[in-house]
Amino acid sequence: MCELLAMSANVPTDICFSFSGLMQRGGNTGPHKDGWGITFYEGKGCRSFKDPLPSAQSPIAQLVTNYPIKSKAVICHIRQANSGAVCLENTHPFTRQLWGKNWTYAHNGQLKDFAKKLTVKAHLPIGTTDSEQAFCYLLDQLFYQFGSEQPDVKTLFTFIAEQAVKINALGVFNVIISDGQYLFAFCSNKLHYLTRRAPFGKASLIDAEMEVDFNQETTENDIVTVIATQPLTDDEQWQKMQAEQWQLFHLGEAIAL
Amino acid sequence: MCELLAMSANVPTDICFSFSGLMQRGGNTGPHKDGWGITFYEGKGCRSFKDPLPSAQSPIAQLVTNYPIKSKAVICHIRQANSGAVCLENTHPFTRQLWGKNWTYAHNGQLKDFAKKLTVKAHLPIGTTDSEQAFCYLLDQLFYQFGSEQPDVKTLFTFIAEQAVKINALGVFNVIISDGQYLFAFCSNKLHYLTRRAPFGKASLIDAEMEVDFNQETTENDIVTVIATQPLTDDEQWQKMQAEQWQLFHLGEAIAL
Repeated sequence: MCELLAMSANVPTDICFSFSGLMQRGGNTGPHKDGWGITFYEGKGCRSFKDPLPSAQSPIAQLVTNYPIKSKAVICHIRQANSGAVCLENTHPFTRQLWGKNWTYAHNGQLKDFAKKLTVKAHLPIGTTDSEQAFCYLLDQLFYQFGSEQPDVKTLFTFIAEQAVKINALGVFNVIISDGQYLFAFCSNKLHYLTRRAPFGKASLIDAEMEVDFNQETTENDIVTVIATQPLTDDEQWQKMQAEQWQLFHLGEAIAL
Repeated sequence: MCELLAMSANVPTDICFSFSGLMQRGGNTGPHKDGWGITFYEGKGCRSFKDPLPSAQSPIAQLVTNYPIKSKAVICHIRQANSGAVCLENTHPFTRQLWGKNWTYAHNGQLKDFAKKLTVKAHLPIGTTDSEQAFCYLLDQLFYQFGSEQPDVKTLFTFIAEQAVKINALGVFNVIISDGQYLFAFCSNKLHYLTRRAPFGKASLIDAEMEVDFNQETTENDIVTVIATQPLTDDEQWQKMQAEQWQLFHLGEAIAL
């Protein structure tokens, strides 16, 4: 299995604190040592840092921990390989273009018979994971359903959720998808989230001796949601998502469609 | 204008020496301060480091300088913006999937009337540069010409060269394209290359006080070609490419088709 981490925020916010906790699970406090990756959106652009090395020992992860890149949407993944070799092309997140936007995706779980059940034509996988195949399948479905024009937000994410339920029937499909504006989370069996807003308090990481006082890091209008496979702090109220529950986030808030 | 740097090698090789020279031209010894990016292939996978900050001041460029990532194919670009704002989505190299492979591209020059003359349908740009539009146009042409199957190497790169001549008619189109195995370089008005092989010697950077003795860094079977807009060293014989000349590189060598 793997672990997911994502963030949605209404102002460009760094994810150094949460990432510091998660990266420890990549070979130190956790077994997810088969690579890691993180994608930051800045406007329509995004940049990824990836390494097939364990995050706990990666100089690139060290840079990401210490260099505060500010973003309104971030997706991060640490991998414990179960489908596909440990190599760069199998390292999440995956980013592809659709409708003139960067779509980024990361998956935790495993899918049976994915090569047969999730056939693709327009969007071909580069690596050999069930995860990338499922992403390509989803992009194909979006392309066949909506053609060259992106539909409205409600139609789009309702359709993505329907596809996620179908893919989930093949196994375990905890997934996060974003276009940089919206962040979609689908829970198969394990996903939590937490929205921080004023009045801010302190938080302590579970995986490292690190505490932050968000009062000193934020303004009173900031709203930031963090989504993670497992809670990253032990003194905040994380909301556990239910099986087949999905949630859309926009500018830091869970929104209803 | 911008500057290009690329490498093709027969063994995984780091580009730290050449990159150390080039990054100085991003705001220090040169005016190319509007962002930079570098893409390293490792097998079918690739990873990019990008920053809209000047490379001479970028902590990420510092990491790339000091952390030897070994690769057989690398494309790097430092930008002096002339089309499109300074932002992440306009930062080269650009990478897209075609035929189940990552294709990476970087461009130096400018193209007139690109929005009208280089119309695209299947591969849409995310940013606003002439460069990305030309890449999307090229991918569209490849897709319409060859469909879902990649043709043989000779047919493919001859077609790419024909397209490059057409695009070049719109202005200046120095370009580098790679799928991680082959590296294609097209010279519009400024591009040089250099192949290093045994017996290796010493080389000194033009842009930084740095010398390397390749005898101590290589084995006698290593073959490495470096391609750059302007020579990076002052004590080696760089080969100047001619207008509309193109060259394919594979495993470190210039090859004939």
